[in-house]
Amino acid sequence: MDKSIEHEFHFSRRAQQLTSSAIREILKVTERAEIISFAGGLPAPSGFPVEVIRAAFDKILRDNGKVALQYGTTEGFAPLRHWITEEMNKEGANITSDQILMVSGSQQALDLISKIMVNEGDKILVENPSYLGALQAFSVYQPNYMPVLTDDGGLVPDSITPQIAKDARFIYALPNFQNPTGRTLNLERREKLVSIMANLNIPIIEDDPYGELRYNGTPKPSLLSLSNKLGGTVIRLGTFSKVLAPGLRLGYIVAPTNIIKKLVQAKQAADLHTCTLTQMAVYDVVKDGFLEKHLPKVRNIYKTQGSCMLEAIRKEFPAETKWTKPEGGMFLWITLPEHINSTELLKKAVDRNVAFVTGRPFYIAPGYGQNNTIRLSFATVPEEK
Amino acid sequence: MDKSIEHEFHFSRRAQQLTSSAIREILKVTERAEIISFAGGLPAPSGFPVEVIRAAFDKILRDNGKVALQYGTTEGFAPLRHWITEEMNKEGANITSDQILMVSGSQQALDLISKIMVNEGDKILVENPSYLGALQAFSVYQPNYMPVLTDDGGLVPDSITPQIAKDARFIYALPNFQNPTGRTLNLERREKLVSIMANLNIPIIEDDPYGELRYNGTPKPSLLSLSNKLGGTVIRLGTFSKVLAPGLRLGYIVAPTNIIKKLVQAKQAADLHTCTLTQMAVYDVVKDGFLEKHLPKVRNIYKTQGSCMLEAIRKEFPAETKWTKPEGGMFLWITLPEHINSTELLKKAVDRNVAFVTGRPFYIAPGYGQNNTIRLSFATVPEEK
Repeated sequence: MDKSIEHEFHFSRRAQQLTSSAIREILKVTERAEIISFAGGLPAPSGFPVEVIRAAFDKILRDNGKVALQYGTTEGFAPLRHWITEEMNKEGANITSDQILMVSGSQQALDLISKIMVNEGDKILVENPSYLGALQAFSVYQPNYMPVLTDDGGLVPDSITPQIAKDARFIYALPNFQNPTGRTLNLERREKLVSIMANLNIPIIEDDPYGELRYNGTPKPSLLSLSNKLGGTVIRLGTFSKVLAPGLRLGYIVAPTNIIKKLVQAKQAADLHTCTLTQMAVYDVVKDGFLEKHLPKVRNIYKTQGSCMLEAIRKEFPAETKWTKPEGGMFLWITLPEHINSTELLKKAVDRNVAFVTGRPFYIAPGYGQNNTIRLSFATVPEEK
Repeated sequence: MDKSIEHEFHFSRRAQQLTSSAIREILKVTERAEIISFAGGLPAPSGFPVEVIRAAFDKILRDNGKVALQYGTTEGFAPLRHWITEEMNKEGANITSDQILMVSGSQQALDLISKIMVNEGDKILVENPSYLGALQAFSVYQPNYMPVLTDDGGLVPDSITPQIAKDARFIYALPNFQNPTGRTLNLERREKLVSIMANLNIPIIEDDPYGELRYNGTPKPSLLSLSNKLGGTVIRLGTFSKVLAPGLRLGYIVAPTNIIKKLVQAKQAADLHTCTLTQMAVYDVVKDGFLEKHLPKVRNIYKTQGSCMLEAIRKEFPAETKWTKPEGGMFLWITLPEHINSTELLKKAVDRNVAFVTGRPFYIAPGYGQNNTIRLSFATVPEEK
């Protein structure tokens, strides 16, 4: 018996911000086996190093099972935090391991950061369009979104005037192969962004789930490492979802220690700590340089599938169509001729067993954005399809 | 370089509610190997079925690795939700599996429930003293606590008058071997509690992490199953932390479907979903009746260590000392003669390499509670110590 109490139950104002993700709803439709889906943001399972992960879990449970299965510290497994610190410092981050908090995937980082930084009605700056999951996490805390101008080169730092940025709690940005557009910020824009935000005294949330999936062009310095010379506060989010496997739910936050301290308290109240066993197993996988051998294989999968998709777009789409040419990651962004409504197109596509995501949900407000945009993922569809 | 920005950084009002757990701070002191600690709430590692869990992880990664490592649904792994449903229904819960949401430990359940139910300033009813981790989770959402009278039999349902309960969002209760007191509600009080709350139209949050750890006396029906005949809304929290192992971070919420639907949205925004691999492995462990063989061993550990502790208390403590005699779980509660301050006593005890937790942090407000109370855990200290 389900005693549903829809009509008498009063949810919090916060709960009223929660809606089911438009993308999740579309994905339900596209779970049918015959559908070729370019909709989801699921990494390619062919890139999961299943046997290596299996060996690591087995080793940890064999040698250290009682520790791996006991409660752990909220901050996370110390050797893994130390490993992440060293990796970041190779790239110039210049951090210590007490600046790292392990979290249950980057999504939790977005939740915890909003929780400790955003009061109802506070302004936050976001690229427009931006990552839908981030918008969902932020919206629970009822911010006022201020969209930041983007063009073919990603967000436009010069558009962030003191007036636009006034009293903002942070700016949220994905500098590499942005979700949903696939765009990457060049060095000049990165430096400008860090400098401008430092002058405005507003922290940058640098979300970088895809940075290791670069298959063309040269890597750009992280906003975190640029802040060493240019000043300002950068809170950087990383994850093992795209370099190992997303089902593990393991990510991390890099931040100044006073912010980490508050995030640790927030995480303690939210779920005590992230699975000890998973952290120990992932440390065992990565500690001796495994990713250096593994990542080229993953990048190659995305490069092949991405090229294949670009080729198909060139052939199949109408002449006035524009699209991004990502140097890495999992997504590209299509702008159709203005008279085409991508929602109408999706309905027709699903009838022909093809799915994608319309651009609309990635825009932060009804007044912004275009009806003729599409996000395509080339991550999970093998080349031959 | 740690760019600590303590003096310029404005955290949210919510963040200002966050403080480090008094218990965690004490535990840091007591991590020294020579200390005999009755402080922590850590389950006995000798009760972790390490080899069974190891075999399950290995089997899942061998047979079904790519699914186990991919993103999963927010609701959780369907066969495990189905198994929990059947277990609950054996006890009379009368639920369907769409009333189950898998979460990353019960702590996350407390966070998500507060998130969707509590606005700043809303009244919530809690036993006094109550579980510290729950108070931490709730406090983030800035409720007004209304303490509910407790006596040697646990919370006193008759004390919940319409005036006390007016506009409360929920009552939070641990009916079995309560943390911190070890007290259990008898059948009469359970029925009264469910009836009274049903009449008042206020949901009950039934947190039952220890229910399976009963080693004396007869099991009592859950508040959820009593609500089938007595009415009202019961949201029940369960966990695998005490029956398998806490480091896995796996728990679940049982609630009416309209509440589950909102909780699913909140969880999606908070961390997308709980680790797929862990859910699949735990299902593999429990699906063929493993717990029926395993739980008697765990109960026996706690029974032996609990009896040993009661014996020691009888011998060692002053004549006017009172203490609870739990029928299960991990904790007992000592009320010292009034002139003894338990905080002062703890300092002396730590000098002699013994640690415990004072009662103070479990009370919800400075005006309530006693300075002469102690919580002792008999879970992690072997009998011989």
